[in-house]
Amino acid sequence: MTAADSATEDRWFTEQHLRSGSAFGLRVKERLHAETTPYQTIEIYDTTDWGHLMVIDGCTMVSTRDNFLYHEMMSHPALFTHARAKRVVIIGGGDCGTLREVLRHEEVEHAVQVEIDERVTRLAEQYFPELCEANGDPRAELLFIDGIRYMADAEPESIDVVIVDSTDPVGPAEGLFNAEFYASCFKALRPSGILVQQSESPLVHLELIKSMRSAMRVAGFHAVRTLGFPQPIYPTGWWSCTMARKGADLSGFRERGAQTKQFPTRYYNAEIHKAALAQPNFLRDALGD
Amino acid sequence: MTAADSATEDRWFTEQHLRSGSAFGLRVKERLHAETTPYQTIEIYDTTDWGHLMVIDGCTMVSTRDNFLYHEMMSHPALFTHARAKRVVIIGGGDCGTLREVLRHEEVEHAVQVEIDERVTRLAEQYFPELCEANGDPRAELLFIDGIRYMADAEPESIDVVIVDSTDPVGPAEGLFNAEFYASCFKALRPSGILVQQSESPLVHLELIKSMRSAMRVAGFHAVRTLGFPQPIYPTGWWSCTMARKGADLSGFRERGAQTKQFPTRYYNAEIHKAALAQPNFLRDALGD
Repeated sequence: MTAADSATEDRWFTEQHLRSGSAFGLRVKERLHAETTPYQTIEIYDTTDWGHLMVIDGCTMVSTRDNFLYHEMMSHPALFTHARAKRVVIIGGGDCGTLREVLRHEEVEHAVQVEIDERVTRLAEQYFPELCEANGDPRAELLFIDGIRYMADAEPESIDVVIVDSTDPVGPAEGLFNAEFYASCFKALRPSGILVQQSESPLVHLELIKSMRSAMRVAGFHAVRTLGFPQPIYPTGWWSCTMARKGADLSGFRERGAQTKQFPTRYYNAEIHKAALAQPNFLRDALGD
Repeated sequence: MTAADSATEDRWFTEQHLRSGSAFGLRVKERLHAETTPYQTIEIYDTTDWGHLMVIDGCTMVSTRDNFLYHEMMSHPALFTHARAKRVVIIGGGDCGTLREVLRHEEVEHAVQVEIDERVTRLAEQYFPELCEANGDPRAELLFIDGIRYMADAEPESIDVVIVDSTDPVGPAEGLFNAEFYASCFKALRPSGILVQQSESPLVHLELIKSMRSAMRVAGFHAVRTLGFPQPIYPTGWWSCTMARKGADLSGFRERGAQTKQFPTRYYNAEIHKAALAQPNFLRDALGD
């Protein structure tokens, strides 16, 4: 503990990320809610500067202030890469923020959110209502079942984009980071379909990113790209998603579509899409992109 | 304090950034050094996963693990934008990491580092020797004087690039963030010369960035651009530098030069340079870039 700790009586929620020896905290006014579900422990805090904060099993998951970065980057790059994604499946994503971004695309005819823990969504409705504002869209379907099973049972070649918006690869989400799950996704995707998955920090989870990418290729995906973006409340503040495509490459996207989109975004635009595809030298060396 | 805090006996150094209500910490093995100079308090920690850490007045300044992001982005975008920077001045930068990157450019004939606190450099030599490996370069000059005075007294039109690699705009660095200082830089720069300055977090210091950019224009600079990059140990993990140019624009850079550079970088490359120029929508709206 430092001088700063004793000099203030502020209260903080801090996530210590032991794997990387780093920690991130937000100053809080009060804890609004805490419960243990069959899957995990969920807490909601009211912070002084970041709005509401959802914490799952001690890990910061969503804040009002910075979730736009993550949710936009989990959805728009994939949807502006696909020529016309009609059917989208979100695995996890219980806060509904990714669902909202997906449904901004008018070409999407059906979007299913498959969240194992219904309590995440019920708490999001209460504490992050803005993320849930598309839940009543007639194209939206919310299921509260196991996403691994859902993808294993999905009809072959029935889905255009699968978005894996999960917690870290421990606990309930562990089975979402291996070749067996990717094989289910591959089978369920239509030709040129895209899988996109949150892939942790480029700086401290490089081995995980490499193993995900390798497993995606083993599952049959033709092309794999890792995109970086800022996300302050996640370890190191620098996060990534990894896209994999079935039978087509990932070198281009509908740039004109992104430039002329008719819906608002706060982070994403066509230039940011290209920027996210740029690889720092150390990643280029490690990943071969 | 959370369950995680009491569940571990690890020791952490934590910077609480009160302005944004966020905190960042690194797990430490021990504090190696602490001293109070006429200007500030400097501490050095040995961390478990980030190498050495320099802390100034309670703020995390440099870690062995992630400083390459900052030092490369403070130097290479400006030097690959300028056609041929022969004379470079670094204001601050006492850890010598920026000086090292600048001197990788063979077109640079003379680089002066003007650090007000000699102890920062002496401690960097001891605890970050890799950042100081260019200090003996015959093109390098290390001065330990006030950078504001240095720029005010500089010969008009004598410098190609000024890099302001300072602490936050409080304390000794406060006078580096206003129109008077920028006017000194403008006068000292040759035509097409470039000023580049660290400009804090795009997410939580937007008003500072706007005021810096406005003051740069008041001082006479023709073009201003703000570039983003990750920097885990600084508040929010998302940082920026702002470039201002005298009598020329900032829309292009020596892309071919960046692609064929003969020195190593870990983050910077030509694609990353372009990526850093991309503005998220909320910044585009706020800054007008």
